[in-house]
Amino acid sequence: MTPRSSSESARDIPEATVARLPVYLRALTALADDGTRTCSSEHLAAVAGVNSAKLRKDLSYLGSYGTRGVGYDVDYLRYQIAREIGVTQDWPVVIVGIGNLGHALANYSGFRSRGFRVVALLDADPRRTDEVVAGVPVRAFDDLEQIVREQAVAIGVVATPAVAAQDVADRMVACGITSILNFAPTVLAVPEGVDVRKVDLSIELQILAYHEQRKSQAEPALPTDVRGTA
Amino acid sequence: MTPRSSSESARDIPEATVARLPVYLRALTALADDGTRTCSSEHLAAVAGVNSAKLRKDLSYLGSYGTRGVGYDVDYLRYQIAREIGVTQDWPVVIVGIGNLGHALANYSGFRSRGFRVVALLDADPRRTDEVVAGVPVRAFDDLEQIVREQAVAIGVVATPAVAAQDVADRMVACGITSILNFAPTVLAVPEGVDVRKVDLSIELQILAYHEQRKSQAEPALPTDVRGTA
Repeated sequence: MTPRSSSESARDIPEATVARLPVYLRALTALADDGTRTCSSEHLAAVAGVNSAKLRKDLSYLGSYGTRGVGYDVDYLRYQIAREIGVTQDWPVVIVGIGNLGHALANYSGFRSRGFRVVALLDADPRRTDEVVAGVPVRAFDDLEQIVREQAVAIGVVATPAVAAQDVADRMVACGITSILNFAPTVLAVPEGVDVRKVDLSIELQILAYHEQRKSQAEPALPTDVRGTA
Repeated sequence: MTPRSSSESARDIPEATVARLPVYLRALTALADDGTRTCSSEHLAAVAGVNSAKLRKDLSYLGSYGTRGVGYDVDYLRYQIAREIGVTQDWPVVIVGIGNLGHALANYSGFRSRGFRVVALLDADPRRTDEVVAGVPVRAFDDLEQIVREQAVAIGVVATPAVAAQDVADRMVACGITSILNFAPTVLAVPEGVDVRKVDLSIELQILAYHEQRKSQAEPALPTDVRGTA
C-alpha cells in the first residue's frame, strides 16, 4: 500500500470524470452568460450533453450535491469545478511550431478565457521570428529554456510537424515542462511524471463516419447484403 | 418499444466504445507499421492507452474475441474496426472557413490516411478564392449546394469564426449534410437526425491543468490550507 496524504489534493477523481469537468465548466459558463442562477442536474446534463445520473455522480466527487428542489447554484458550481481543475489560477503556456496550426492555436480565444496565458510562441525557422501573432512575438526555439525558467512555464504545446515533435518534447522535458499537449501526428516518449495529451483531429471525424454509416444503412436497404446467407 | 431491424447495422454499440474504436484503429495501424502480425489484448491495450478488460469488452461488441494463447490478428482486427466505423469507404468532406485553422485542417495528413477526402474548401471572403491549399482550390461559399450535390458530401467541417458558424451549419443542413464537425467556439443548433461533434481545443489543456495542479500540490506542502480546520 502506498501511504496517502489526507490533503484535499489526494482524493482520486476517476480519469473519465476529470475529462468531463471542463465540459461541465463550459456548460455552466453558457448558463451563467444567459443569466441562469440555478439549474437542475437534468438541465445541466442536457446542456453538457451527458446523462444526468453520470453528472450527479461526477459532481459528488467534488462534494457537490445541489439542493433538493432548487438544484445547483450555477456560479458556485463553476467556481468549485474551476478550482478543482486548477483554472482559477493563470497557467503560462508556450506553443512551439508556428505554422498554420500554431497560428490557429495562438489566435484561439478559448485558451485565454479559460485560464491559459500564451507567454511565448517559438519556431525553429528564423524567417518566422519577425512575426507577431495575437500580440505575441515569435521567438527562436533556442530561447525555450530561458522562457520556461523566467515565466515558470509548466505546460508546452507541440504544433510542429511529426518529424520534429520528439526533439521538441525532449527539450521541453529537459527544462522542466511537465505537461505536454501534442498536436503532431506521432506518439511522444516522455519520462514518468510528465503528462502528455494527444489531440488527433481525425478521431472526431471517424466517430461521425460511424454514425453516418449507420444512417445510410438505416435507409430502406436493397437486398445486396444477403447474398449467400441461405 | 421501437421495432428494430435485425440487420447488422442495428446492433447498439455504446457511444463510449464508438469513441474508442478510432483509438484502437490507430494503435493497430502503428503495430502493423512495425511489422507486428498478432498481439495480446494486454499489448494492444497498452499501445492504445486503455485498460485491457475494457478493450476486450469493447471488441466483443464487434464479435472479436481473439484466439487464446495467440491474441488478435492485427490486420484482420484493423479491417473489422475500419469496417465498423465505416472508414473502409471514402468519405467526401467539405471544409468551410479557410483561415489559419482551415489551412491547418486542409493540410492535415491524418484525414487522407484515414478514409476522408477533402473535396472542397469554401470561404465567404472572395480574396481567399484564388488560393490552392494542399492541392485543393478555395471556392466561394455560395458553391456549397452544388458541390454537396455533385460529390455526395455527407460530412461538413465548420472552421469559421463563432459568429458565422450557425449560418454555415444551417446552409449545410439545408443541402443535405447530416454530420458536422464544429471547430468554432459556439454551440450549433441542428435538427434531429444531424450529428454534430464539437472540438474544443481548450478541453485537453484543462485536463492537463488538473494533473499539473495535483503535481504541484503533491510537493511538500506549507500548512497554508489548514487554517480554520481545528
